[in-house]
Amino acid sequence: MTVALPIPTLVDLARQTRQAARALALLPSADRRAALEAVAQALEARSAEIAAANEADCAAARAEGISPALYGRLKLDAVKLAGAIAGVRDLAKLPDPLGERQIHRELDEGLVLERVTCPLGVLGVIFEARPDAVVQIASLAIASGNGVILKGGKEAVRSCQALIEAIHAGLAQTAVDPAAVRLLTTREETLELLRLDRYVDLIIPRGSNSFVQFVQNNTRIPVLGHADGICHLYVDAAADLAQAVTIAVDAKTQYPSACNAIETLLIHQAIAPQALPELARALVAKGVELRCDPASLALLQGVVPVVAATDDDWATEYSDLILSIAVVADLDAAINHITTYGSGHTEAIVTTDDAVADRFLAEVDAAGVYRNCSTRFADGFRYGFGAEVGISTNRLPPRGPVGLEGLVTYKYRLTGAGHVAATYVGADARAFTHRDL
Amino acid sequence: MTVALPIPTLVDLARQTRQAARALALLPSADRRAALEAVAQALEARSAEIAAANEADCAAARAEGISPALYGRLKLDAVKLAGAIAGVRDLAKLPDPLGERQIHRELDEGLVLERVTCPLGVLGVIFEARPDAVVQIASLAIASGNGVILKGGKEAVRSCQALIEAIHAGLAQTAVDPAAVRLLTTREETLELLRLDRYVDLIIPRGSNSFVQFVQNNTRIPVLGHADGICHLYVDAAADLAQAVTIAVDAKTQYPSACNAIETLLIHQAIAPQALPELARALVAKGVELRCDPASLALLQGVVPVVAATDDDWATEYSDLILSIAVVADLDAAINHITTYGSGHTEAIVTTDDAVADRFLAEVDAAGVYRNCSTRFADGFRYGFGAEVGISTNRLPPRGPVGLEGLVTYKYRLTGAGHVAATYVGADARAFTHRDL
Repeated sequence: MTVALPIPTLVDLARQTRQAARALALLPSADRRAALEAVAQALEARSAEIAAANEADCAAARAEGISPALYGRLKLDAVKLAGAIAGVRDLAKLPDPLGERQIHRELDEGLVLERVTCPLGVLGVIFEARPDAVVQIASLAIASGNGVILKGGKEAVRSCQALIEAIHAGLAQTAVDPAAVRLLTTREETLELLRLDRYVDLIIPRGSNSFVQFVQNNTRIPVLGHADGICHLYVDAAADLAQAVTIAVDAKTQYPSACNAIETLLIHQAIAPQALPELARALVAKGVELRCDPASLALLQGVVPVVAATDDDWATEYSDLILSIAVVADLDAAINHITTYGSGHTEAIVTTDDAVADRFLAEVDAAGVYRNCSTRFADGFRYGFGAEVGISTNRLPPRGPVGLEGLVTYKYRLTGAGHVAATYVGADARAFTHRDL
Repeated sequence: MTVALPIPTLVDLARQTRQAARALALLPSADRRAALEAVAQALEARSAEIAAANEADCAAARAEGISPALYGRLKLDAVKLAGAIAGVRDLAKLPDPLGERQIHRELDEGLVLERVTCPLGVLGVIFEARPDAVVQIASLAIASGNGVILKGGKEAVRSCQALIEAIHAGLAQTAVDPAAVRLLTTREETLELLRLDRYVDLIIPRGSNSFVQFVQNNTRIPVLGHADGICHLYVDAAADLAQAVTIAVDAKTQYPSACNAIETLLIHQAIAPQALPELARALVAKGVELRCDPASLALLQGVVPVVAATDDDWATEYSDLILSIAVVADLDAAINHITTYGSGHTEAIVTTDDAVADRFLAEVDAAGVYRNCSTRFADGFRYGFGAEVGISTNRLPPRGPVGLEGLVTYKYRLTGAGHVAATYVGADARAFTHRDL
């Protein structure tokens, strides 16, 4: 398939994407929905080619001795592909995030202000081995009227290319210029992408903590996402013990490699002697290794297998069946621990005491603060957003699980009939009416 | 006033500000309003000391031969101080930006999600000679529940210190820890402030374009603001000429150094021959120097004094009574010019043609897109926000004139009764209700 054309630079490609995105931004909702359906159909029509490309990626990965976890993400079987295609059609059913009027205000007679949502422009999304991310991200971009430049992991390069070819074939039948969705394949291009602040408006890195940190430190483009996900569960003196056990087990073991799984269990000293053994037994029964501070070590030695925690444990996201445990003197000590070591992702308390809960929810500074439920609910789908771009631990919005609304911005439209600012200044200044319409 | 205490480092100071801000964030609206009133009263009580400090700054500035414009900003007379104090009381009357519930949704029976606004944390605000900015920014911070570290221009150092002492004296009577509001005085501290991403959540630079650019390039902390303000007025073929003249004169001359003043006038070739002479005469009568492209030069030579524009003119924010003029073939050419040279601030069209206006408002990518009114309306007070933090040309929100809402973020609160994620996964998965309350 070699063709004798000059190789476009990444800047050329990004400029074309920007241009295609400008046209996409102006399309009505119906055109974007039709494009999503065309993409879904093209993916179905080319499922054999996609499966063959993925099989080639998987064979190469097996030959290189890829880890089983990575292999599981790389493998795009018929069920996963069907799920991804269903996701494209689900997106087409969500409310259009564009053209929403957030402000409608008369400033003076005949001078009307509107604030209306519009696309950001071009997204740069860098992800790892999962090829189905191509489908999800491309369709999120189309749904939100944004162009997107994708960079997938090298293990998945054949799968990603087959998927992009299908997506382009689908878009070619629609009002959306296929140039709005691009795929990069080399590592060098990742670095270049991070420097394209003239053409890319938001970077969404999906990958290891160190990779996300690298991206955050090496671009002037705003970054949406999170590096660490160090979440805590604090079991208060007034906790319902049965709830605490159920929640701790779910938050640690239901999906240990998720960013919203807990890494540390904090427990009030008043309840620790009776509650900790039961909590520990339930966790150990699920295969969890416990790393304990001196107080919890003393309570658990002889009850279950435990190891002593080091200072590093409190700052570690295990992403595995490991949990650090500390006994705290009171709520303040729990909040201080979370303030020191938490990553601002999701923090939970188990308590029946409303006053304690209110203080925890108000004083803990994190994207999510939870009472009597598992941290694993921190997810755009579970929140009812219908789609998730990622989870942001930035303090500025969008914060927490981000749905389509994180991919749009707004502009102010002001319409007058010859209105000028001088009218509203000086001794004879006319007053604004500032009347919401 | 030298005291024998160890000099705190900026990191110590920022850590204390962070701590004071955490307490401030938890105060109810009434406490923050009371603090604003106490600040207003303290400023009134110390107006003689403030005037004396400002007189010393002004005398030093005169001795150094400060420019009249800078001197005008530095001078804090009784009227300006009274205006600043009135501004503090106005802020206390605005709706509280904190604790607003943006989402209230049942995820399942007994599992309720809320999204609630909360303060950002600590602001870093760097401004130039105007000492009254201390009053405005400190009160914006208090009103929004944020700590603030201020750095003023060196010419205003005595005035800023006198104002901060008054503000601290006022706060000392209230629930707000005076440590929540800090003043830095040396240039070295500015650089250090930009590196304090652990303690400062948002940087707001107010100053020259090059200074704002320097800040944007030298910090990992999010920056709210704008460097260039290159705004255009496009006079369409279907323009009402009288409106075009009034708007052009206002947008260029009503306050030429404002960021929302226009720098370039674009005019459709079909209307240029009859309209441009009238526009030019009105602008020249207000003292505007006109820098023309070849087509407009040909139309205006002999009519009014004109000079030929160079390529640099299209990319220059004059901040002065200078205007570049270009004749364009059509709407597309106007939009292309704006896309190439505009800074995403505010762009206006004069036209009676609805279809042309709709295309301009949709296709021009800027924080403000205006029809038949002056770009000078781009301002938080004029938009009815009651207060303005600054104008942002970032694409991500907050964009455009930013009121108190730009100083807050939100957190998600989830309250359950032992709910765990495992319930909603797998073969027997329970469905979420996702019912807005």
